[in-house]
Amino acid sequence: MIHSHDEDTNIKNSELFTLTYGSIVAQLCREFNNNYIEVNNQLDKMGYNIGLRLIEEFLSKTGCKRCQNFRETVDVICKVGFKIFLNIQPTNDNWSQDGKSCSIVLPDANPLTEFVELPITSDTKISRELWYSNILCGVIRGSLQMVQVDVDITFVKDRLRGDDRTEMRIKLNKILKDEVPAGED
Amino acid sequence: MIHSHDEDTNIKNSELFTLTYGSIVAQLCREFNNNYIEVNNQLDKMGYNIGLRLIEEFLSKTGCKRCQNFRETVDVICKVGFKIFLNIQPTNDNWSQDGKSCSIVLPDANPLTEFVELPITSDTKISRELWYSNILCGVIRGSLQMVQVDVDITFVKDRLRGDDRTEMRIKLNKILKDEVPAGED
Repeated sequence: MIHSHDEDTNIKNSELFTLTYGSIVAQLCREFNNNYIEVNNQLDKMGYNIGLRLIEEFLSKTGCKRCQNFRETVDVICKVGFKIFLNIQPTNDNWSQDGKSCSIVLPDANPLTEFVELPITSDTKISRELWYSNILCGVIRGSLQMVQVDVDITFVKDRLRGDDRTEMRIKLNKILKDEVPAGED
Repeated sequence: MIHSHDEDTNIKNSELFTLTYGSIVAQLCREFNNNYIEVNNQLDKMGYNIGLRLIEEFLSKTGCKRCQNFRETVDVICKVGFKIFLNIQPTNDNWSQDGKSCSIVLPDANPLTEFVELPITSDTKISRELWYSNILCGVIRGSLQMVQVDVDITFVKDRLRGDDRTEMRIKLNKILKDEVPAGED
């Protein structure tokens, strides 16, 4: 279903993208009858499928070589991946001692949520359960899967919920070394 | 649910947008069990809701004044609206004698379909029934509704189906003159 394309079409469609993403979330909330846990799962699954394809674009645009360790991988995701596709640069912190897990912190200007306000003033079900930007977890998980890096990744905070920041937690499960393509380090 | 934002964040996310849109279509095909007529309706409805909000961005970005006639309206949609949000400039042709309907023709590089190939080699149900980019009809219909212009708009051709071009047909129903904001012509 994918064919390659030659030139970079830099669409200036942040609003359209934001509103379109909002439509997906609203549509899923309707489809799953406000079962937000299931909506989170679906967003993650959609993101995963997108990630499986997006990595191809990422590698061809950046010529990025295999990272030496997981810290470098997370750095590349934050500084290059997010920059290319969403024009933001998250930071990472709170690394575990074994270097296998950390937090990825989105800047306040998360383009997925630019126009969104969840009803967070009271302790509503939606603000307790929905991870609005959950598609991003899936995108990262799917992209990394294609380069033989198996991770778990979930949101743990979201400014939309009234948290102090928007934060994903990523954890390296394993690097599937056997499947590293021949000729690469 | 909308709050204004100050600066233009030009996201360079054509691939992410294209893939995300593809996810919506796939999701709807699953939800409605490959009833593509219903998928078309849903895409149109999602687009309509997006259009109701996107027009605000459009007006604030462009400072566009009320058009003098429907030809001018269609011209602005093609040359300014599509340019701003999708970075393409469709053309219009095949105007009816009364100046109330015409075709809007998308360029070959329709960013919604950049990576997509429908199974069009045989006469499949999906290629006969699905209007893949149907969200665009809804966006235009919704945007125009907010400026008191009531139109019908549908796809009539799509290169994804093997047609010679991708074409929407737009028809002016009426301009709700009574509701023109005071102070404007």
